[in-house]
Amino acid sequence: MASKDKGLLVVLSAPAGCGKDTVLAEVKKADQNVKQSISMTTRLPREGEQDGVDYYFTSQEDFENKIKENGFLEYVKYGVNYYGTPKKAIEEMVDSGKTVILKIEVEGAGNVRKIYPDAVSIFIMPPSFTELSRRLKNRGTETEEDICRRLKIAEDEMQRAKEYNYIVINDDLSVCVNDVLSIIKAERLKYSNMQEKIKEIINN
Amino acid sequence: MASKDKGLLVVLSAPAGCGKDTVLAEVKKADQNVKQSISMTTRLPREGEQDGVDYYFTSQEDFENKIKENGFLEYVKYGVNYYGTPKKAIEEMVDSGKTVILKIEVEGAGNVRKIYPDAVSIFIMPPSFTELSRRLKNRGTETEEDICRRLKIAEDEMQRAKEYNYIVINDDLSVCVNDVLSIIKAERLKYSNMQEKIKEIINN
Repeated sequence: MASKDKGLLVVLSAPAGCGKDTVLAEVKKADQNVKQSISMTTRLPREGEQDGVDYYFTSQEDFENKIKENGFLEYVKYGVNYYGTPKKAIEEMVDSGKTVILKIEVEGAGNVRKIYPDAVSIFIMPPSFTELSRRLKNRGTETEEDICRRLKIAEDEMQRAKEYNYIVINDDLSVCVNDVLSIIKAERLKYSNMQEKIKEIINN
Repeated sequence: MASKDKGLLVVLSAPAGCGKDTVLAEVKKADQNVKQSISMTTRLPREGEQDGVDYYFTSQEDFENKIKENGFLEYVKYGVNYYGTPKKAIEEMVDSGKTVILKIEVEGAGNVRKIYPDAVSIFIMPPSFTELSRRLKNRGTETEEDICRRLKIAEDEMQRAKEYNYIVINDDLSVCVNDVLSIIKAERLKYSNMQEKIKEIINN
């Protein structure tokens, strides 16, 4: 019973240190219909990151050219670096029925919602501000100054949680992953995404 | 971390023969926070049905008095019988943070949504019209004429699926139950139901 109902566009944001990447990896493992859009960035790759897998890494000049060509769903300058989401691949995946997750900074998420009002937005929060602070310190990849700056940004971002449709808390990873999977499942069951299936049922 | 966020009111409807009662029983078993409102009816109890558990069974005269007192969230005359949902108990349960499921005929569901615009509505459908027809015949509790009448009503009801927020299909029972559980979980994670938790996180 092939359904012609469209897919789902999901915007996923979180302050640094909330485990966004781990949650996303687990969600993709659990639901084969979930695909992640790959962002483009001008920041340098971290150890282990691969071009075309984690990000498309590019130069500032190339990025700014693509902006002029209107090739991004959204882009944002975060600190000194650009992050952007190429449009075309995403729209093709959603049209084919996939759930496409966009991992996007809080600042960029608003732009996506303007362009795609049907996008579902999820904000991941830490169990507490104290715990977030502890996690960032334990990462050990940043200076004390960086951590303070990130915590200030995280606080500002958490104040913008109200701009999102759903809030999930990453205390226990498997609970958090199941929460995201439940949101995706529920959104797929909304009437607007079930119209073709309903027609099939009535006519068979 | 006690949350002061409110509960959830869920309206559940389905054509006869879609397994609504079985689905609801399994959902209540799986999620202890889910409570069912008990409806009042003037129809006669079926074998095994208990007053105050399955329904409050009452006379037509008593039911009509309660209507005059505005004691029902909704009521509907379905065939020759009244079905209604007493208001007070439901509001108390939702205020205390419970998820309260109202099992309501399609006609009555619209009234609930008018009174409680925040109510979440779920419509259960059979996998196909042919399968629904087969299930109703196999029940063996009704005459051929009754079955025909029920199928006509079912078809009309299915045409009104668009009045519901979510559509779940009862083909495999456990899939259907998990769909309903996912909807409940997702609705609880909506920003509007997470505001108190978010405050706690930022302040701790």
